[in-house]
Amino acid sequence: MSGSTFGERFRVSTWGESHGKGLGVVIDGCPAGLALCEEDIQKFLDRRKPGQSRYTTARKEGDLVEILSGVFEGKTTGTPISLMVRNTDQRSRDYGNIAYSYRPGHADYTFDQKYGFRDYRGGGRSSGRETVGRVAAGAVAVKILGELGISFCTYTKAIGPVEIQEFVKDEILCNAFYMPDAQAAKKAGEYLEECMKKQDSAGGVIECRVTGVPAGLGEPVFEKLDAVLAHAVMSVGAIKAVEIGDGVAVSRLNGSVDNDGFVCKDGVVSKTSNHAGGIMGGMSDGSEILVRASVKPTPSISQPQQTITNTGENLSLEIHGRHDPVIVPRAVVVIESMCALAIVDALFVNMSARMDGILKFYGKASEN
Amino acid sequence: MSGSTFGERFRVSTWGESHGKGLGVVIDGCPAGLALCEEDIQKFLDRRKPGQSRYTTARKEGDLVEILSGVFEGKTTGTPISLMVRNTDQRSRDYGNIAYSYRPGHADYTFDQKYGFRDYRGGGRSSGRETVGRVAAGAVAVKILGELGISFCTYTKAIGPVEIQEFVKDEILCNAFYMPDAQAAKKAGEYLEECMKKQDSAGGVIECRVTGVPAGLGEPVFEKLDAVLAHAVMSVGAIKAVEIGDGVAVSRLNGSVDNDGFVCKDGVVSKTSNHAGGIMGGMSDGSEILVRASVKPTPSISQPQQTITNTGENLSLEIHGRHDPVIVPRAVVVIESMCALAIVDALFVNMSARMDGILKFYGKASEN
Amino acid sequence: MSGSTFGERFRVSTWGESHGKGLGVVIDGCPAGLALCEEDIQKFLDRRKPGQSRYTTARKEGDLVEILSGVFEGKTTGTPISLMVRNTDQRSRDYGNIAYSYRPGHADYTFDQKYGFRDYRGGGRSSGRETVGRVAAGAVAVKILGELGISFCTYTKAIGPVEIQEFVKDEILCNAFYMPDAQAAKKAGEYLEECMKKQDSAGGVIECRVTGVPAGLGEPVFEKLDAVLAHAVMSVGAIKAVEIGDGVAVSRLNGSVDNDGFVCKDGVVSKTSNHAGGIMGGMSDGSEILVRASVKPTPSISQPQQTITNTGENLSLEIHGRHDPVIVPRAVVVIESMCALAIVDALFVNMSARMDGILKFYGKASEN
Amino acid sequence: MSGSTFGERFRVSTWGESHGKGLGVVIDGCPAGLALCEEDIQKFLDRRKPGQSRYTTARKEGDLVEILSGVFEGKTTGTPISLMVRNTDQRSRDYGNIAYSYRPGHADYTFDQKYGFRDYRGGGRSSGRETVGRVAAGAVAVKILGELGISFCTYTKAIGPVEIQEFVKDEILCNAFYMPDAQAAKKAGEYLEECMKKQDSAGGVIECRVTGVPAGLGEPVFEKLDAVLAHAVMSVGAIKAVEIGDGVAVSRLNGSVDNDGFVCKDGVVSKTSNHAGGIMGGMSDGSEILVRASVKPTPSISQPQQTITNTGENLSLEIHGRHDPVIVPRAVVVIESMCALAIVDALFVNMSARMDGILKFYGKASEN
Repeated sequence: MSGSTFGERFRVSTWGESHGKGLGVVIDGCPAGLALCEEDIQKFLDRRKPGQSRYTTARKEGDLVEILSGVFEGKTTGTPISLMVRNTDQRSRDYGNIAYSYRPGHADYTFDQKYGFRDYRGGGRSSGRETVGRVAAGAVAVKILGELGISFCTYTKAIGPVEIQEFVKDEILCNAFYMPDAQAAKKAGEYLEECMKKQDSAGGVIECRVTGVPAGLGEPVFEKLDAVLAHAVMSVGAIKAVEIGDGVAVSRLNGSVDNDGFVCKDGVVSKTSNHAGGIMGGMSDGSEILVRASVKPTPSISQPQQTITNTGENLSLEIHGRHDPVIVPRAVVVIESMCALAIVDALFVNMSARMDGILKFYGKASEN
Repeated sequence: MSGSTFGERFRVSTWGESHGKGLGVVIDGCPAGLALCEEDIQKFLDRRKPGQSRYTTARKEGDLVEILSGVFEGKTTGTPISLMVRNTDQRSRDYGNIAYSYRPGHADYTFDQKYGFRDYRGGGRSSGRETVGRVAAGAVAVKILGELGISFCTYTKAIGPVEIQEFVKDEILCNAFYMPDAQAAKKAGEYLEECMKKQDSAGGVIECRVTGVPAGLGEPVFEKLDAVLAHAVMSVGAIKAVEIGDGVAVSRLNGSVDNDGFVCKDGVVSKTSNHAGGIMGGMSDGSEILVRASVKPTPSISQPQQTITNTGENLSLEIHGRHDPVIVPRAVVVIESMCALAIVDALFVNMSARMDGILKFYGKASEN
Repeated sequence: MSGSTFGERFRVSTWGESHGKGLGVVIDGCPAGLALCEEDIQKFLDRRKPGQSRYTTARKEGDLVEILSGVFEGKTTGTPISLMVRNTDQRSRDYGNIAYSYRPGHADYTFDQKYGFRDYRGGGRSSGRETVGRVAAGAVAVKILGELGISFCTYTKAIGPVEIQEFVKDEILCNAFYMPDAQAAKKAGEYLEECMKKQDSAGGVIECRVTGVPAGLGEPVFEKLDAVLAHAVMSVGAIKAVEIGDGVAVSRLNGSVDNDGFVCKDGVVSKTSNHAGGIMGGMSDGSEILVRASVKPTPSISQPQQTITNTGENLSLEIHGRHDPVIVPRAVVVIESMCALAIVDALFVNMSARMDGILKFYGKASEN
Repeated sequence: MSGSTFGERFRVSTWGESHGKGLGVVIDGCPAGLALCEEDIQKFLDRRKPGQSRYTTARKEGDLVEILSGVFEGKTTGTPISLMVRNTDQRSRDYGNIAYSYRPGHADYTFDQKYGFRDYRGGGRSSGRETVGRVAAGAVAVKILGELGISFCTYTKAIGPVEIQEFVKDEILCNAFYMPDAQAAKKAGEYLEECMKKQDSAGGVIECRVTGVPAGLGEPVFEKLDAVLAHAVMSVGAIKAVEIGDGVAVSRLNGSVDNDGFVCKDGVVSKTSNHAGGIMGGMSDGSEILVRASVKPTPSISQPQQTITNTGENLSLEIHGRHDPVIVPRAVVVIESMCALAIVDALFVNMSARMDGILKFYGKASEN
């Protein structure tokens, strides 16, 4: 697959650079008849906007989305939906030595190695702004899933060493870090203050919980739901690990603990535990899906760093300007979007899994 | 993508069930002119054979591969390579209550939910035997990569709570667990004895290191090399987490530590550290690639477990017969195979990244 | 897409060469619950067997298909279906100058140019035997479509200059050419006698009519049903033209003639004509789909022909041995198979076109 | 594949409707380092503009393209190229009975059947304006191919019954029909006058010749170059037949005539004829590629036509307003664009066909 396309039946193709004319996405395969307006998408984009806190970038982005096609009289038509956000600030400025040297922890070096050439303005395509297209498409995916009773709860589980100790869902939107634990959020703020003093940055952990997913989504053996979720989430910049359910902890569990038992009560099947995170044998099992992503610390720091220029000169690089000491809070909606894209695609692909389903869909179900 | 196909340009389609007639794979897109014989593939399949140890299944599988097409006079022709392993033991036996109840930790329930129907003999397509096709294809991928100077070192990092404390490469093939640490291997054996006494099972951790990968492989933004590796590895049964480089640990690091600096000496670029695990911005950076997979404990245990039948009756299930208390050692070659499939595909896809490379390939490079 | 895979949701990957160990296909995405046995596939393969007539090759092929996976207790399981036909005759023989010279009208030259190497035994992968995999998969596709009330009628419309003058459906299976016109079949036989006397060969025209296809299949704008059918049919060796409905004749028609009017009677919509061949705007319109393929004359003829060796020597080549003077009759089932593969895939892909269809499928349809 | 995406390695996703905000395309997989500016694309779009003649629509479209991403300092960066053309005229008007009735020969009925809903303004996505995205992408493909010495000559071969009798390349751009025969162009004009008097329309034939294509492009057996070209061309609205080389005429030829002989002179291989149209066994043979497309007459005519409304009422429909009596001249650049998209993709995909090519590309060629 070409690199900027994701999904099989609900297929998104994103485009755009940090300091180009804009960013966007074409969604191909969105079913006809979905009510959709720009506000549906705008509220998702706003979630990746820097907050009021001083721990995320102060730059005012004001990303405004425009629906360019695929919607008529307030409903999707089944044809491609093209969404665009214009970059408002494209002022030319001096990028200094960033234009010809490789920032540690960034994609500068690998871009040059692959393409022999690089848009050095703000990271170009490797900038976090690239996620605008993912989030715009994710908003549409989440809306479709919502109509099917599938809902998302995504939040920050940790900022650096500060982990949540409790889960209060309503708290998530009440702090700048999207943490479901007010105390942890307070400590995270203090931790980031320290980082900033040291001209340093921090990473963290994001969790996405999805409820209402019908059992049976995911296609063995290579398009298993967990495999596609891992792909989706790992494709986000700065993510270095993806876990499902108990994740890395499973390696130390015994089978007698890790196995989720089944129980049937009043005709309703449930599990006695959910170590598997809602996915068994690569297919959803009907319980809550749990995906966890580890985010590396923001690579842009003001401390001097050892690097080289594109002509091989050694250099001590200092990156000026204001940078987020942490990107985790802004990445929460990105992780949710990627999970939604994976699940909506699995949902559509699953429709041809059984002859009886196909026959019924086309009105040919047998009488018996 | 349909579920049993992986890869874009080096594309493999696997087939087969645990107790059907056999298993196999069709490789489409293998370049012409590669020397290939059955022994090349057989030695990979032998790596997933149960060893002499008592910790892996005693069943004698003796998987013998047959090349059915795509090779002529000892070389690949560029046409599809079809590989098959016949199942030798297809004796009908009584599967007892496994035929109609859902084993905890297995894919029985989700298969039934998706397809309305299930081959209950030994897990069918969800059996570990499914990996025969992956490994046969992986052998071909590893051979191609070897000709390009790319090599793999894959091993067990942990069995349950027993982690390696040192890395002695030559030790890997000297113990039943493929651990690069003889002491750890000894302890792992003792740990598994305990598990077996308790009718329980264990998981573990596998690492795959790849050296010699040229910089620039991987296609931003959705087909990043780490995203595709995560997909490939997570698609293996029993894997619940995939990490690249420092993996989950990055969430607690500061940018000043996590960022890998660059240094140039005598015209050779290298990095001052490799926290990134050889992948920056989704593209290989020329240093060693490090992938880590967490394996859950074998779900088949002899202890009674709580489950239900396919008609909703509650049941205390005891699974008889001999089962591996751990599958980690046998999964080592599977993880290596999946990484190889991801990398060989990225290598082919990368060839059209630059105009100058295309012009040179087709003999149209400009003079200057 | 790699070359030997066709289809998106009903995906087939074929393999095998003329004189290798065998030929086969892996079908990925066949829905679970279809009754399927080897006889279902065998009867399709038998249709491409040479007939008793002296106009098709006398070689006894006796292709026997084996189902290797994906079927359990007589029904498909939803997992890949692997089908294989062993080549019975693999005796080594002297291929003479065919091994190193390029037969005119064959793929010898282009195979060598692409792959630098070629399996020269009977054409290898470019042999007509390659279609065994297509037909085996086509049998499964036709069976699925049959359950949905979709049926095929495929026949020879012309052999060389001899065209059918009438359409008697029952006649199709009563002559060696699958022509729906006994008189034309007789003349075709006489024409081929002439060709054989002159050591020459003939081409012809095949038509495939499909009834019962629901309206709306096909995905604008690049995966239109006619585009995919054209792809499918043109991918068969020896096909040089594909037409839909009136085909090449439309260029001379006026809009007032070519436009098919609509009429509604007793609530049933029909068209006043079917110049479009059942496809409007790239989607099925519910009327009969008509696909037409032009087959070139068999390239293997005994007359001396001007060609070169793979080292650039000029050569007058005489191809010995018995060859079909026409391949059209044996290609009839191949064209039907390819049309079936295209339509079954379009049928599955279409299932996610509308929100209301998706909601109903997943049991979430609103009450009103 | 979702419907609005074409190609594997050079992948285009088009979007937009006739009377929406605009139309565009995202090109993913364009190699880095290609000089590209808006004028390169604009001149292609201008070729599909209505000419000065009275036989093509008088509506002034003035399509102006904007490059939104993927180009930096005048060169492509390897990241997605987003191209957009704003619709200038989106005035709301009364579409009358077209809003709820099905125009014969149009996609109105099938769109409603598939999506349950339709953008009735000017045909929406099924309008000829949809080709704006194809042509914008085609301009980029043709530019890449030009750098490799591959060139296109595309022209009108026939308008209704008026066929060209001679081929004068320079004449193509000298008449409103892009015919390489001034006399034929004159007669075509007269023929269209007649059609217009009768409130009727005409079709025609377009040919595309491609020279300089290296031998070996195309991937047997399903992604043969002719199969992909047929797909590409048939996906254009109004095309009902695609032919390669002699096309439909091959069915009446004998093998002794149809077979193209080979000859080698001074080390250069050539063919004694080109009945095959430059493609043998699905791969380019190095000679001129010839693709032919039959275009149906414009469906919009002013004569009353029999049709139905979307509620099943019978209706005599008269379509008012000015319509092209022929679309053939404007479709010439569309056919060229689709052929270019198919060939550039085949060129990239072909790069991994041989081990020696791969080894050389990555600087690992053996010494001998």
